[in-house]
Amino acid sequence: MHFADELIGRIRGLGHPLCVGLDPHLDLIPASFRKGTMRPEDPTTSEAVQAFCAEVIDRLEKRVAVVKPQIALFEQLGWRGLQVLEVLVDRCRANNLLVILDAKRGDIGSTAEGYARAYLEPGAGLGVDAITVNPYLGRDSLTPFIERCSSHGRGVFVLVKTSNPGSGDLQDRTLASATVFEAVAEMLAGECRRLVGPRTGWSSLGVVVGANYPEQADRVRQRLPEALFLVPGFGAQGAAAEQAVRAFRAASGAREGGIVNSSRGILFPVCEDWETGFEAALDEAIDRLGGAVR
Amino acid sequence: MHFADELIGRIRGLGHPLCVGLDPHLDLIPASFRKGTMRPEDPTTSEAVQAFCAEVIDRLEKRVAVVKPQIALFEQLGWRGLQVLEVLVDRCRANNLLVILDAKRGDIGSTAEGYARAYLEPGAGLGVDAITVNPYLGRDSLTPFIERCSSHGRGVFVLVKTSNPGSGDLQDRTLASATVFEAVAEMLAGECRRLVGPRTGWSSLGVVVGANYPEQADRVRQRLPEALFLVPGFGAQGAAAEQAVRAFRAASGAREGGIVNSSRGILFPVCEDWETGFEAALDEAIDRLGGAVR
Repeated sequence: MHFADELIGRIRGLGHPLCVGLDPHLDLIPASFRKGTMRPEDPTTSEAVQAFCAEVIDRLEKRVAVVKPQIALFEQLGWRGLQVLEVLVDRCRANNLLVILDAKRGDIGSTAEGYARAYLEPGAGLGVDAITVNPYLGRDSLTPFIERCSSHGRGVFVLVKTSNPGSGDLQDRTLASATVFEAVAEMLAGECRRLVGPRTGWSSLGVVVGANYPEQADRVRQRLPEALFLVPGFGAQGAAAEQAVRAFRAASGAREGGIVNSSRGILFPVCEDWETGFEAALDEAIDRLGGAVR
Repeated sequence: MHFADELIGRIRGLGHPLCVGLDPHLDLIPASFRKGTMRPEDPTTSEAVQAFCAEVIDRLEKRVAVVKPQIALFEQLGWRGLQVLEVLVDRCRANNLLVILDAKRGDIGSTAEGYARAYLEPGAGLGVDAITVNPYLGRDSLTPFIERCSSHGRGVFVLVKTSNPGSGDLQDRTLASATVFEAVAEMLAGECRRLVGPRTGWSSLGVVVGANYPEQADRVRQRLPEALFLVPGFGAQGAAAEQAVRAFRAASGAREGGIVNSSRGILFPVCEDWETGFEAALDEAIDRLGGAVR
């Protein structure tokens, strides 16, 4: 498998680039799924999270190409949270959904190797299709993850310009000839080109660029023409569909070049009845993003 | 409790700043602890890791102030790895050892909040004394961790200048008036000052600065006079004791200002008999660092 080819192939079939984030915020889980105290340390809380996420995953079958679990919200349940996540990743596979683990890991040498093995190889860990990673430690810290693109057909999304208000503190700082986030993009250019798929021409080495920073997105795209963009910040975080797909480009009948994530806007609709609200929010996100790429 | 006061108080009692890293590399675990295939997915592997680390922890009682488990090497065992880590953190407490979780987490808003809750509060997670975090996402991504310094007496170590060869790719890049790593240090200055302990004057907001970059260490120290340095790169990674404590300064009879980590050099001595090798390596590290701060 080539991650980018596989992902783009599925997106072409569905006609939209929506990725649904699995972010089980304990205080937002709907009443019908809640169990016991909902304190993170109680085993019943993990059961509630599992039941809720399983229902979401089942409802996403044949609707989206990919889901993005946020591992922090499973880690807050301790080891039981990772056990639940393992079950959910298996369920995604059974429902034919690709899985990007939002872990934002970054470490050195043999430790980075440990993370890459844990999450991008079959075995004890999760064996997901792709992972998000942090570039602060430099190129050698990314190597073990990038290697799994060739050796295991996995994908990697490197944080370049994140969607939070403070993302400029470091990422927008000006270097001699560019900003920090542009320097990160430039650091990835060679590997990105090397990892393009034979079918689609898109690379398994992607980047995270917030929907709320369109101008920065343009500058990243200039430097990384083949990179898939994982775009947070759509929906609950405020950006419009057109803005979210700004760095996509025309290809085979529709604009493509990444995925647009929505988590809370779909998982936790403001609606009396969760099922109705979820389906309506999912339909709306698919319509809006499908319209924006046509 | 105030983390920095507590840590420095213990270091003063022991006379050395050694921190032992708990990095259970599967291929390096000594023969006497190995069980079954030692593949990460086998439950016996987690048992072997637990037995090995428990033995290390017991041998560290009254010898060091603090240990630093590397969570990646537990995550590679899946949920069982986190279960083992939970048992080991409890064992550290029973042996009166402080615990810094080397997790290098960094994320935005409610997700960063999830990590901070998972690791710096009692509950489902580990409830360790301090954690390492990554600054790439900016100041707001650090806030939930820093808040636990005041609210829960915890500590935070922000990656500033890491010890790996590629650390310069981004961290040494030159901004208008300084480098990226200096900009990170400057970003932390206000909070660092705010979080100094009443007893020692050291701050619970610390930094990670590799022992192998002494000149950069000086520049971080200039900007953060009260920060505790968590110094990797001593021992197996090559730096001498004097170099590792370079940013420490004279105080109450000895030089102080941080902790110096050694993982593999102590855990995995090149020696036929593990017990003998471990004790000799531990003694030597303590002697060398104790000598360097006297």
